[in-house]
Amino acid sequence: MTAAFLHHGGRLAEAAARFGGAPGDWLDLSTGLNPVSWPLDRAPPCDWSALPDPGALAALEHAAGRSFGADPAVVCAVPGSETALRLLGLLLGAPGRALVPAYRTHAEAFATSRPIAFGETPARAETVVLANPNNPDGALRSSAEILDWSTRIAGAGGWLVVDEAFADCHPEASVAAQAGVRPELIVLRSFGKFFGLAGLRLGFLLGPPPLLARVRALVGSWPVHAGALAIGRAAYADAAWIAATRAELPRRAAALDAVLRRHGLMPQGACPLFRYVTGCDAAGLFERLAAARILTRPFSERPDALRLGVPAASAALARLDRALAHGAGDG
Amino acid sequence: MTAAFLHHGGRLAEAAARFGGAPGDWLDLSTGLNPVSWPLDRAPPCDWSALPDPGALAALEHAAGRSFGADPAVVCAVPGSETALRLLGLLLGAPGRALVPAYRTHAEAFATSRPIAFGETPARAETVVLANPNNPDGALRSSAEILDWSTRIAGAGGWLVVDEAFADCHPEASVAAQAGVRPELIVLRSFGKFFGLAGLRLGFLLGPPPLLARVRALVGSWPVHAGALAIGRAAYADAAWIAATRAELPRRAAALDAVLRRHGLMPQGACPLFRYVTGCDAAGLFERLAAARILTRPFSERPDALRLGVPAASAALARLDRALAHGAGDG
Repeated sequence: MTAAFLHHGGRLAEAAARFGGAPGDWLDLSTGLNPVSWPLDRAPPCDWSALPDPGALAALEHAAGRSFGADPAVVCAVPGSETALRLLGLLLGAPGRALVPAYRTHAEAFATSRPIAFGETPARAETVVLANPNNPDGALRSSAEILDWSTRIAGAGGWLVVDEAFADCHPEASVAAQAGVRPELIVLRSFGKFFGLAGLRLGFLLGPPPLLARVRALVGSWPVHAGALAIGRAAYADAAWIAATRAELPRRAAALDAVLRRHGLMPQGACPLFRYVTGCDAAGLFERLAAARILTRPFSERPDALRLGVPAASAALARLDRALAHGAGDG
Repeated sequence: MTAAFLHHGGRLAEAAARFGGAPGDWLDLSTGLNPVSWPLDRAPPCDWSALPDPGALAALEHAAGRSFGADPAVVCAVPGSETALRLLGLLLGAPGRALVPAYRTHAEAFATSRPIAFGETPARAETVVLANPNNPDGALRSSAEILDWSTRIAGAGGWLVVDEAFADCHPEASVAAQAGVRPELIVLRSFGKFFGLAGLRLGFLLGPPPLLARVRALVGSWPVHAGALAIGRAAYADAAWIAATRAELPRRAAALDAVLRRHGLMPQGACPLFRYVTGCDAAGLFERLAAARILTRPFSERPDALRLGVPAASAALARLDRALAHGAGDG
């Protein structure tokens, strides 16, 4: 297993180069992206020639804020929530704290970062980063638990950054409505995962107005491209698609769980876009699935854990089922 | 004249709201964007669903570096050169210095910034930002002059940032080949102006490896979107289109110059994407052209100066000619 697969998901070209086949032959279960994307033909045509219009940016932020249940005035579009995390590491200055396990950028975005347990009150001003639901283990915390923690972190002079990149299926657990209300709470949202359009690089930072002003000054007058404006605005306004997808994703995740359990694997997590399996020989399982051209997500610090994206099509699930049953060579 | 038009060009929706008509009725001469865009049908199809591939990012940076005459290893793609300027203001720390007149972000990107004359040696470590050709006045400096200045700025412990956003027509004046060689020289390039695709938000930062590593860490694993990767790579590799456009743009600029001179205006500047007119009643001229649904670019600090983009079509030039001859009402 090469280092590339331990860093981020979605490295199909490298997988094909390492294990064979063309990238198109592979079933990519290495990410938490919805494989059934929002239909692009519902978006208006995109004008790449002009500078993005400030009114279109405001309209995108408004549609996104409504979808998040947040005040649109505290929503700032950014070129990907991963980039926003890194900007925050620089802007906030304070040392970082991140859960274990966590999305790797939660620690990387800070010059120094130490682990923290959920709910632990920091002794000093630090920037705590939490994903809800968490990535990779899918742990879901209630908004009440998170807001209680936020109060205690703020009491120590610190910030809480809640990365809600995978929260679209859990509106009840979101704290987006408190963004701009609590002066030390920052919420990040991601467009690409739930809508299955990660190539767009569109995210949002929600927070108190003084911080938002600094972020806007840093990303400048045209923070996102014309395609993100056109597609993002239409997708966030598509309440019917959002509702149908919120209903469908848990059904797909349940079907994956049944397959994993049949092969003695114990799936964890509340997020219907991925499942976390622990207590397995992750390197062996990764290689066995890779031999069947199925890419999954291993972790350098957890040799017993593997994350699997949730397939949409029954054919993809059956292919995973066969690969788990018989090992390499028949995927 | 409202403040929006003094801030940046390209505010057609606001122009229509203020002066009437639909945005589509307007002739936009408020930017320095090539109105004849690189043909998008020459780009491969874009996959918005997957995370952008690291190999595609490397290929884009390679194609861009070759086009700039620079070492591709020192080329870092960024989500717009305007955003890169703002990141530099934060990363470099030193106070800023900018020419007068200059692109407004050259001063705004820094917590403090003072004017500087071209060639003036700073007394201490500062970050000097220069556009070549300069925006808005179109002044073009030779690479020898710029490298001489770079040596003296570096001698004071400072940085020189050369914003080559409009340099595609002047390869002989570019200092991109020295990026990565001189440790205190940074070069910015912009995709959207010459290729007429500003909605893509694609730029490049070229500089010494230690700084590049910090910029890459800040923008993260997916600095630009899938459309920028597909379109940017194909466009920079399209040597025939680039050569034809380098030949055509000066012809269009000469045609605009003839019209301006016929109406007693004295166009300045070497950049064939825009012209700078001084010694005029800019507010009056702006309003008169706006009444004919032609948007130009005024400047709050220079009430005697107006910038005009270079039209491509003879009909657009004839419309400008009529508006200059007869004033409002017949545009």
